[in-house]
Amino acid sequence: MISVAIMGHGTVGSGVAEILTTHRHKLFTALGEELYIKYILDLREFPDSPLADRFTKSFEDIINDIEVSIVVEVMGGTNPAYDYVKRCLKQGKSVVTSNKELVAKYGAELLAIAKDTNANFLYEASVGGGIPIIRPLTQCLVANEVDEIAGILNGTTNFIFGKMINDNMDFDSALKLAQELGYAERNPEADIEGHDACRKICILASLAFGKHVYPESVYTEGITKITLEDVKYANELGYVIKLIGDVKKHSDGKLDICVCPMLISKDCILSDINDVFNGIMVKGDCTGDVVFYGKGAGKLPTASAVVADIVDCGKHLKTRKRVFWSDCDGSNIRSYKDSITAVYLRVEGDGEIASEVFPDSEIKTADGCTVLLTKEYTFGEIEEKLSALEADGVRVLQAIRIGNL
Amino acid sequence: MISVAIMGHGTVGSGVAEILTTHRHKLFTALGEELYIKYILDLREFPDSPLADRFTKSFEDIINDIEVSIVVEVMGGTNPAYDYVKRCLKQGKSVVTSNKELVAKYGAELLAIAKDTNANFLYEASVGGGIPIIRPLTQCLVANEVDEIAGILNGTTNFIFGKMINDNMDFDSALKLAQELGYAERNPEADIEGHDACRKICILASLAFGKHVYPESVYTEGITKITLEDVKYANELGYVIKLIGDVKKHSDGKLDICVCPMLISKDCILSDINDVFNGIMVKGDCTGDVVFYGKGAGKLPTASAVVADIVDCGKHLKTRKRVFWSDCDGSNIRSYKDSITAVYLRVEGDGEIASEVFPDSEIKTADGCTVLLTKEYTFGEIEEKLSALEADGVRVLQAIRIGNL
Repeated sequence: MISVAIMGHGTVGSGVAEILTTHRHKLFTALGEELYIKYILDLREFPDSPLADRFTKSFEDIINDIEVSIVVEVMGGTNPAYDYVKRCLKQGKSVVTSNKELVAKYGAELLAIAKDTNANFLYEASVGGGIPIIRPLTQCLVANEVDEIAGILNGTTNFIFGKMINDNMDFDSALKLAQELGYAERNPEADIEGHDACRKICILASLAFGKHVYPESVYTEGITKITLEDVKYANELGYVIKLIGDVKKHSDGKLDICVCPMLISKDCILSDINDVFNGIMVKGDCTGDVVFYGKGAGKLPTASAVVADIVDCGKHLKTRKRVFWSDCDGSNIRSYKDSITAVYLRVEGDGEIASEVFPDSEIKTADGCTVLLTKEYTFGEIEEKLSALEADGVRVLQAIRIGNL
Repeated sequence: MISVAIMGHGTVGSGVAEILTTHRHKLFTALGEELYIKYILDLREFPDSPLADRFTKSFEDIINDIEVSIVVEVMGGTNPAYDYVKRCLKQGKSVVTSNKELVAKYGAELLAIAKDTNANFLYEASVGGGIPIIRPLTQCLVANEVDEIAGILNGTTNFIFGKMINDNMDFDSALKLAQELGYAERNPEADIEGHDACRKICILASLAFGKHVYPESVYTEGITKITLEDVKYANELGYVIKLIGDVKKHSDGKLDICVCPMLISKDCILSDINDVFNGIMVKGDCTGDVVFYGKGAGKLPTASAVVADIVDCGKHLKTRKRVFWSDCDGSNIRSYKDSITAVYLRVEGDGEIASEVFPDSEIKTADGCTVLLTKEYTFGEIEEKLSALEADGVRVLQAIRIGNL
């Protein structure tokens, strides 16, 4: 019997407790041992829970119990999660987490502690909710050099774009609907400003390329400036707009990494990922494009990924799994100004000057403005050209990268 | 150092040797030990290979060498692959294979032997080529009861449908093009008659539900009868036609399993899987729909899956991985006549009689024939109704299941 402690009894935490209870037989078959929930840490009271006798308000109960070998952190945030997780790992207890903020911020440090104490630190649920991605990336694609990872990593923003594309809703109405349906928080900033997607692409980049990528080093742009007009023009030109997290490795070893809205060609499978679903494309040198698709959030999908990690910890209590990256100061990240991209531009007027500044663009004029799909430039060049346009009195209404996936 | 023998130096086998050589450093990092190709078994001569000194024509070299702990079977077919693999497993050597025919036919027996001798028998590459599916199904989705697996499991037939849908090619021309491009064999029977897809859905069904499903128990229908007209009518009605392998578990524990062309709604992500790509949808009770997408065949994609299994074997030389199913006599499979489905029918004439025999169908008449999308019936009922129609003098030109995914 393996004793497990669950820290946090919110959406994901209660899902983990539920799956460990309802799927007990299946998990026993897979693991060959029983998983026993010995503690649930939460400051709130749950007197009606069938597990009421397992609740504690004190982390010390968990850290001091040598029987507890696996600790599940599903509290969210970094305080006190970071401190608790660190103390567990230092004691040699394995930790499973769904907390993307924690992993994106402290992953390298926590993995190093886990390595020292021969414990496991697993985080499948931190990216893509119920979609298997961390384990496939480290195990199934182990025989590949990963060239690029690009994904729709945030279901809320994807839902909003879907409503704009299919139901002609403007951004504000679509956001409001997402909030009403419980897909977006009352304070939606982390989703719509791209911070949530940024944490996830940081975790994937760290894992695939072996060095910690901190969110602060990643060019991150949200979706609030995208208008219904842009969605429509993109559609007419054969594209859909998606919030994409993207990391690419260059031959010099440096990473181009960004989170921003992009025009995605309708020929690309990521353009077909709708509603609150996530999709993550991994380009391996042997496999070519592989895509993982599913629900990126939600109680049971996320909890099921947590439980898979618990089982994996249970199987490897004495042998560490090598899912590791080392710390890094960000010197492996290219400036976003050096990244090369084509852009979709929408400018006021007939586009005459814009088409001189961006020669050989594909051009479409309608409704008093002009849309240009430019050739590729560095983002620095594009910024200069846009400043030049503004100086010439051309109002630039929109600039969105065109994904090259 | 771990000594590996590769049996077969064809497309996949030479890919495995290539990856083990070119990705040596990455694999060493992942495994912590070197993988050394000690033997390559092939009856042909490869004097110019950089590994020329490792070739042998005698299986006895491999079976008698106690240093060889992992044997890779990429010969294809079951003779002598079955005999060789069995002997390796009996000696306690772990075996990795890409051979779907072998696994679909002898999986239960070979897994039982592996269990007895505490060896591993891994077969990630046997389904979906480079797409991670076996490991995600057993590990990442371990906290799920799988309700259904449905997939586009054969790239050749998917390529043919793509040419019919997008380029208006008829079946014979599309098949010819697939052969010219090397996607289809000169004898394309295994692909176009559904046998290849059948082996793959058998492997997935056996793994997900724990009991061996033999290809002979699976209702299998190829794509040769699909015409350009059907592809066009399906498109107008909001569907695409795909060859689908599908297995569903019912509450009585029995499996509905089939391989056949199906109309797939354009709202379903599987409808967006084009060209030679494969896509496998797993419906878990916790995760909901999860889809795995990528190249289902080809030298390096398939070889990369084989190498991932080799690494996994290397990590678990003393601890067996629990990817197991037991033998079964087919009593867990429902007769195809009891499976419930709606169908697409194309009948000659105005469809008046057909719409009486299949009331409440969606009906569309054009070009001297009538297309009906019926309500759901058991397949047995549908067969009876179709016989009744023919007896009434109505010529039934086509009947295709409508997927409910």
